[in-house]
Amino acid sequence: MSLWRHLDGSRIVDLAQPMRTGMPQSPNHPRFRMVIERRHGDMVREDGGSAANEVILTGGHVGTHVDALGHVSQDGYVHGEVEAAGIQSHQGLSRLGIETFTPYVGRGVLLDVTAVHGVDVLPPGYEVTPEDLEAAAHRAGVRPRAGDAVLIGTGWSREWDRPARFTGEEGGVPGPGPDAARWLVEQGVAVAGGETIAFEHIAAGRGHSTLPVHRILLVEAGVHIVETMRLTELLGLGTPEFLLVLNPLPIVGATGAPVRPLAVLTA
Amino acid sequence: MSLWRHLDGSRIVDLAQPMRTGMPQSPNHPRFRMVIERRHGDMVREDGGSAANEVILTGGHVGTHVDALGHVSQDGYVHGEVEAAGIQSHQGLSRLGIETFTPYVGRGVLLDVTAVHGVDVLPPGYEVTPEDLEAAAHRAGVRPRAGDAVLIGTGWSREWDRPARFTGEEGGVPGPGPDAARWLVEQGVAVAGGETIAFEHIAAGRGHSTLPVHRILLVEAGVHIVETMRLTELLGLGTPEFLLVLNPLPIVGATGAPVRPLAVLTA
Amino acid sequence: MSLWRHLDGSRIVDLAQPMRTGMPQSPNHPRFRMVIERRHGDMVREDGGSAANEVILTGGHVGTHVDALGHVSQDGYVHGEVEAAGIQSHQGLSRLGIETFTPYVGRGVLLDVTAVHGVDVLPPGYEVTPEDLEAAAHRAGVRPRAGDAVLIGTGWSREWDRPARFTGEEGGVPGPGPDAARWLVEQGVAVAGGETIAFEHIAAGRGHSTLPVHRILLVEAGVHIVETMRLTELLGLGTPEFLLVLNPLPIVGATGAPVRPLAVLTA
Amino acid sequence: MSLWRHLDGSRIVDLAQPMRTGMPQSPNHPRFRMVIERRHGDMVREDGGSAANEVILTGGHVGTHVDALGHVSQDGYVHGEVEAAGIQSHQGLSRLGIETFTPYVGRGVLLDVTAVHGVDVLPPGYEVTPEDLEAAAHRAGVRPRAGDAVLIGTGWSREWDRPARFTGEEGGVPGPGPDAARWLVEQGVAVAGGETIAFEHIAAGRGHSTLPVHRILLVEAGVHIVETMRLTELLGLGTPEFLLVLNPLPIVGATGAPVRPLAVLTA
Repeated sequence: MSLWRHLDGSRIVDLAQPMRTGMPQSPNHPRFRMVIERRHGDMVREDGGSAANEVILTGGHVGTHVDALGHVSQDGYVHGEVEAAGIQSHQGLSRLGIETFTPYVGRGVLLDVTAVHGVDVLPPGYEVTPEDLEAAAHRAGVRPRAGDAVLIGTGWSREWDRPARFTGEEGGVPGPGPDAARWLVEQGVAVAGGETIAFEHIAAGRGHSTLPVHRILLVEAGVHIVETMRLTELLGLGTPEFLLVLNPLPIVGATGAPVRPLAVLTA
Repeated sequence: MSLWRHLDGSRIVDLAQPMRTGMPQSPNHPRFRMVIERRHGDMVREDGGSAANEVILTGGHVGTHVDALGHVSQDGYVHGEVEAAGIQSHQGLSRLGIETFTPYVGRGVLLDVTAVHGVDVLPPGYEVTPEDLEAAAHRAGVRPRAGDAVLIGTGWSREWDRPARFTGEEGGVPGPGPDAARWLVEQGVAVAGGETIAFEHIAAGRGHSTLPVHRILLVEAGVHIVETMRLTELLGLGTPEFLLVLNPLPIVGATGAPVRPLAVLTA
Repeated sequence: MSLWRHLDGSRIVDLAQPMRTGMPQSPNHPRFRMVIERRHGDMVREDGGSAANEVILTGGHVGTHVDALGHVSQDGYVHGEVEAAGIQSHQGLSRLGIETFTPYVGRGVLLDVTAVHGVDVLPPGYEVTPEDLEAAAHRAGVRPRAGDAVLIGTGWSREWDRPARFTGEEGGVPGPGPDAARWLVEQGVAVAGGETIAFEHIAAGRGHSTLPVHRILLVEAGVHIVETMRLTELLGLGTPEFLLVLNPLPIVGATGAPVRPLAVLTA
Repeated sequence: MSLWRHLDGSRIVDLAQPMRTGMPQSPNHPRFRMVIERRHGDMVREDGGSAANEVILTGGHVGTHVDALGHVSQDGYVHGEVEAAGIQSHQGLSRLGIETFTPYVGRGVLLDVTAVHGVDVLPPGYEVTPEDLEAAAHRAGVRPRAGDAVLIGTGWSREWDRPARFTGEEGGVPGPGPDAARWLVEQGVAVAGGETIAFEHIAAGRGHSTLPVHRILLVEAGVHIVETMRLTELLGLGTPEFLLVLNPLPIVGATGAPVRPLAVLTA
């Protein structure tokens, strides 16, 4: 039977933040800029037609995006005990680049930690723990399974319009600590995602001095990470299971790429 | 019942061309360039971790992408008889930008014109006609319905590795003429897509002097266009119906945006 | 007699700020970014040679630069009562772009307002007045003449390494007010330059809500402006007259362009 | 006596090619693109003022530019037997970057090889020899001296408006061979410059498979190279000696940078 027939009454939830010049992002990465080049009327074809276009400057870790496994190395090695020095050149990564991530179309599970704590947004410096994730799963009656994509709800998407707060300059950002990362690995998840720029707990005034969750997920366990997702609508709907589509741009050799993830919720 | 359970045995077909520096594209648009900035080892954190990143330069009409309705105007007006001059600024389009395209998750129909003609690739200057589309639909036993996304197979994806040929410098490109565009409009399609840089028939040596199919689809009928798709694998499978996911990056105000379309084929 | 023979014993003073990723600049303009693309060893030619290169992202008003006359308009008109709407397109300015500025090689005069006040740097919100300029000229025993390039020393270059201060976020920046601009016009100067990002007096917390000095110099009088100069060394030397070379990049149609100005001081 | 007084009656000759989107350049480097972002009227300040600006994408070896000594390596070493691997990172070159080139203000000597051969432009694949340079010097009655900047006239600037020819795709480009490079080194020149994209003789159909002149000048001798100069006007004037100003943008760590060189010819 045809798959799209099952879509009747389903709801498509957009999990990407809108991309525009000036949006919050990490200062370590190139600034997003969308610049209109030609406007209607600049060049008019012989039949009265005219087209507008733009230039887009961005980075692989700007806006909603997926981290390739090769994005992070530890002591000189990327995932699979591959020496980082041997796989990088001006053409990018010859192994573990984002184009090696097979587009994910499968079960998505939302673990809503804000609901566990009865808040809309977790406090800036809050470290999400395994107990939080267990409580969120129990509360929603779901269980992550091997191969799933698990999204952690911190409510941080709601701070998007407050750049200094969103980026963590003011007081850090909430996110999983190393223990929560290990818990995700134990469940066998294939993908882990969240709302903050880095899928990490960043204490106030600490910055990204170390990225233990990236090390555990990308380097040690080979789990892909989705960052800067907009989960506001999904959190509001309270549906813990859905079909997740995660198809980052296939930029060959890149360490990450923008994506517009979709959740498909059945009626 | 959960939607992802219907995915058992399904096949995900990637419909995007890989993005890399030097890939074929229109000379009217900014050249794609992916430049690795930091490599592993350039900056090492206190715990031995290191991250690589990149800068990405591109345009809204580079690689596989969706055209926003506001991309093209005719005699000063975009779709819906909106004056183009009034909706454009340094922030892009205030109406009909790509962020107004709701991600498409629905029925996709492939009309394979190469099969009709018994070839792998249509000749460079070939104009696809309504008769071709009717024949392709009849041959496959499918019928486009209102609201569908219809992809026209010309086989042109196979020329991707021959840039001068792919871009049409040598002899033009195959694609729908105005009559085929009107046929698509008559079927009530929501989205039309193809493998070439412009979803047009470009005669040898003619260039993009006029873009009648863009006018008919974008300006007159409000039908979105997907361009530079890679249909090789899908054409090989011979499945004329599938679930199509089309979720271009939500770049606010842009006249188009890159996308990685997926076809989900059930067993 | 050959000009370069007069250079014996002369001193070349570099008046440009070094350009690097993260340098202070206006948030209204694209961020400067220099990204190394190929490194030595990435591509090695058959004879053992290898070359490194880079990508440079910048704007016409980033780093030390010259403003074209067409950069600013007032009530829809640029200098010479030319309607702004008629001279702009995707190709830039068809009139009054930076390529129409003839490279300046001539007398430069430094009016050191810090010396007048006995300070190293003027206070952030200080407005330079005609009296300051008269006092600086009198103190140094020089007089601007028609056609000269006049540089105003505020000492602000010394704040370069403190970005939040340099850009004026903290307390504004010192610079000429409208009266000082009119004084410059009365002297008949061809070029006026300074150390701040905008050649304006910006009061604390005020931002660039209006740019009266730009209006007076660029629009009304047709005087070019040089911004973000590094005058520290020149101020230290105390030489009020010198040969100034001002040769911005000839970017056709641009509203401004980077420059590396030089002062040649004779023995 | 003041230097600028000697400028009376002097002539300033611009030695830079105009920079615009689509200009000829090496395909190995990022494409130049100047994109107007804000136009007059897009943002109007409270007093009726408005400013236009642009985004500039370029490379260090695009348009008229100076090669830093660290641009090229041979067998892993740059000039001075410095290991290339040890001086490169995401911040560019820590040694021998373009910012280490002291702006040149001194004697320039033009060796016009077109005059020697009685042509306007040397043939595409022509290799300039030491004999050509001796003949050009003799003909003009000049002699390069240690520390000079020597420009070789091939007339190639005249091909600027024919991109496929200028870049050498059609038949190569004229330029010095290894023997001419060694001759320049023997004269003790500090800077050598020419009109082509690479200061090399490129035989028809050969491409830049090796760059021996770059190796000899940059790596072995420490002589800076200026490329893509526009010498048409200077060649027409027939003045073999002049004051040359060569002040590339001080882009810290870059392997090269754009420049607008000027020749000052005395009456």
